[in-house]
Amino acid sequence: MRDRLQDHHPEGKFMPTSTSTPPLQVTRDLVRAVLDHQRDDLPSAIDVHARMHLLNVLALTVSAARQPAVEAVVQLQSAVGGAGVTVVPGRSERLDRLLAPVAIGVAAHLDDFDDTHLATVIHPSAAALATVLPVGIMAGSSGRDVLHAFAWGCEVQLRVGLAMSPSHYDAGWHITGTAGVIGCAVAAGLLLGLDETALGWAVGLAASSAVGHRQAFGTMTKPLHPGKAASNGVLAALLARDGFTGPDTVLEAPRGYFEVLSTHTELSTVLDGIGESWHFSDNAVKPYPCGIVAHPLIDAGLELRRLGVEPKRVVGLRVCCNPLVPDLMGHRDPIDGLQARFSAVHGIASALLDGEVGLPSYETERVRSDDAIAMRALVELVPTTTCARDAAMVRAELDDGSTVIADVAHARGSIARPLSAQEVRAKAEALLAPVLGRAWLAVPEAVDGLPRAQDLEQLCLATTLSEDGR
Amino acid sequence: MRDRLQDHHPEGKFMPTSTSTPPLQVTRDLVRAVLDHQRDDLPSAIDVHARMHLLNVLALTVSAARQPAVEAVVQLQSAVGGAGVTVVPGRSERLDRLLAPVAIGVAAHLDDFDDTHLATVIHPSAAALATVLPVGIMAGSSGRDVLHAFAWGCEVQLRVGLAMSPSHYDAGWHITGTAGVIGCAVAAGLLLGLDETALGWAVGLAASSAVGHRQAFGTMTKPLHPGKAASNGVLAALLARDGFTGPDTVLEAPRGYFEVLSTHTELSTVLDGIGESWHFSDNAVKPYPCGIVAHPLIDAGLELRRLGVEPKRVVGLRVCCNPLVPDLMGHRDPIDGLQARFSAVHGIASALLDGEVGLPSYETERVRSDDAIAMRALVELVPTTTCARDAAMVRAELDDGSTVIADVAHARGSIARPLSAQEVRAKAEALLAPVLGRAWLAVPEAVDGLPRAQDLEQLCLATTLSEDGR
Repeated sequence: MRDRLQDHHPEGKFMPTSTSTPPLQVTRDLVRAVLDHQRDDLPSAIDVHARMHLLNVLALTVSAARQPAVEAVVQLQSAVGGAGVTVVPGRSERLDRLLAPVAIGVAAHLDDFDDTHLATVIHPSAAALATVLPVGIMAGSSGRDVLHAFAWGCEVQLRVGLAMSPSHYDAGWHITGTAGVIGCAVAAGLLLGLDETALGWAVGLAASSAVGHRQAFGTMTKPLHPGKAASNGVLAALLARDGFTGPDTVLEAPRGYFEVLSTHTELSTVLDGIGESWHFSDNAVKPYPCGIVAHPLIDAGLELRRLGVEPKRVVGLRVCCNPLVPDLMGHRDPIDGLQARFSAVHGIASALLDGEVGLPSYETERVRSDDAIAMRALVELVPTTTCARDAAMVRAELDDGSTVIADVAHARGSIARPLSAQEVRAKAEALLAPVLGRAWLAVPEAVDGLPRAQDLEQLCLATTLSEDGR
Repeated sequence: MRDRLQDHHPEGKFMPTSTSTPPLQVTRDLVRAVLDHQRDDLPSAIDVHARMHLLNVLALTVSAARQPAVEAVVQLQSAVGGAGVTVVPGRSERLDRLLAPVAIGVAAHLDDFDDTHLATVIHPSAAALATVLPVGIMAGSSGRDVLHAFAWGCEVQLRVGLAMSPSHYDAGWHITGTAGVIGCAVAAGLLLGLDETALGWAVGLAASSAVGHRQAFGTMTKPLHPGKAASNGVLAALLARDGFTGPDTVLEAPRGYFEVLSTHTELSTVLDGIGESWHFSDNAVKPYPCGIVAHPLIDAGLELRRLGVEPKRVVGLRVCCNPLVPDLMGHRDPIDGLQARFSAVHGIASALLDGEVGLPSYETERVRSDDAIAMRALVELVPTTTCARDAAMVRAELDDGSTVIADVAHARGSIARPLSAQEVRAKAEALLAPVLGRAWLAVPEAVDGLPRAQDLEQLCLATTLSEDGR
């Protein structure tokens, strides 16, 4: 073994992977830019956008907060030790400030119903929420500062993710966790009032804790990634505040973050136009609770229903789709709701069978039902490199030999066809009302009022349960 | 950006990187093998070896436990929330069961004085100790079971690390963190009594949380890696016990652990001879508190002293060494003790100046002293691929034009020249006595008695401080 090692250390092989000339100070310049812009108000479109995403992800967290995966994290507090101090939306228990981010992140991402930045496939809101809620409460931050930290937490995730897309995700990393932790460290650091040096350390510390690979898709570990990204980001910022040092050139340096996580990095993407243009604008709310690349197929299934196709008359479904569909969502025989979220054939099957796709479509009982199994078996995926990621064309063959075609140019929830504010509010209502009853209305009210809120009290009151379960 | 993504997803590119035919069930087989062998007694040589390493790493933890990096972690408990429940060697405070592993791991690895498995460059003891201590106390484990979990925690780290060595470390990963978390999940899972399914999930969960890259070397983030590896391993095992699912083929699967972390994997290494042969046997105790590749240079410096070389007469030091020396430890002008630990020139300079190398050699004041600066400037490193990693040859040029040569075939602490049990005990005394006084003797006694101890009480009493600082 030692001989094998002997030959593998030629000098000078550790060069940055960027093909462009690397800026000298990406980490420091990123930190400085965020701190500078933190003083400005958010552009009004970003302010509105951030509140829309905050409402969306809060509603998801409340909705999923009693699921077994979240239950397991919440119950862990007693094994971990100590009494909790901070809230978890949708729950009555309090957790400590490193476990609460895990619980919130898991709940927010559990149903794969949150948001997607299509160019990177990052779902930034879950980890950002899981960071700014506990840290904002701890720091006594104003609503404005929490909204800023949320928006910047998402924006930094996307900029870091874009710099290494698509090679990083292609290699098997779950970018929501790996880019997430950097954005979370920045968001937590903003709320804790870190200076430039400490925020640089926080990024350096966080960069060491990039979590997640795609093999976890279809298990509870997938939503753990944004939860851990948030927890690690909070830990990084808290440690840096207390003088715990990290490498302060971690993004650009040899053997640093990008070097180990990516074969091709465009470092300049991290900084280009920062504070002026917002990649966060391209982050879309998901209309269906599953991996986004299946959304065009679901829209096609719904379209077939609108065209009058009766499910029981269908004998075949030939689906032209982007190659990402079988690649990311290739489960043909999902055994439960988590796996079904990575089954494109289940998405189109349930769209066609039920005429709508929502959380019930991914309940394990529905996933295992005979008609779903039968319909999934009729689906043939034909991956086509010329098919855009938000498009699909489906040909349904009926029992009389006739065919019906559904052509989806842009799926709902794509950048070209985003959900409206009303649709997001309706989604939030559908998620919140079953848990909170009529009190759900206090949630959008608290989110809308954030720019003027002195603290997070109203938001916490609106989203958490009392000990008697409300 | 979307167009850029469009072209990067040809089907079928996600193949395992192993060049050998991958076994079908590495994760499951690993878990089953460890559970099977857990019932057996450790081979007596491994039992002795494990206790030697346990003593070594406990002594280091106690010695470093009041350093600023550890202080920052301990003080974090109040910010995180809740009251602590478990001990940290060398401290009086109690921390929770996810933060205590961080503190213990940081303390154990902070001085870079712990241990090294040279073929992988893994330092397995720190993360293993940081796992088995809090979990063993929590589970009320016997001393025998804790020793088993410690040995298996180290062994699994090494097997996982060997399977991806050297490509993983070469790429910039800090293998102590990345392989560490798998061993820690297994160690914690053993103590928690997980069954095969849950232990498989624990490995799957842990694999998502591989931490660390080499850019952090020379900052406090380096020792954070084994601390986080332990904390993440404990979290993984606790979650898996509570039914939180993870991917159960994470080691062998496409997009799994090895796929994302390594360009070349020998999967069979994980299982070959498991339970029969122990890579842990090749783990060596470090004689000097710095990166191990500098150890031959330090030995050469000490040898020059023994040969009568007076430091003030030296005008040049030409050092033939393995290329890893400048590669891993190339700091020429370290600014503090942490950086000096990655400065091979500081190692040989202080060996020659002081005639001994220990913790004082790496105090910041010593690192910045004039004579150290002057001596470092005289060192010329000549990396030579034919020079073994545990060897060095140094030619000292004196002010009268004469030369003296020191030739080190195998450094102290190498596999060929390990520290004796007596030397390890002397090292432990030197570390423990300044903190514990004469009570230090209770530590080796407690470690020696572990195979017969009902629980960890004696070990905890011997290593932790009372609230009045003992």
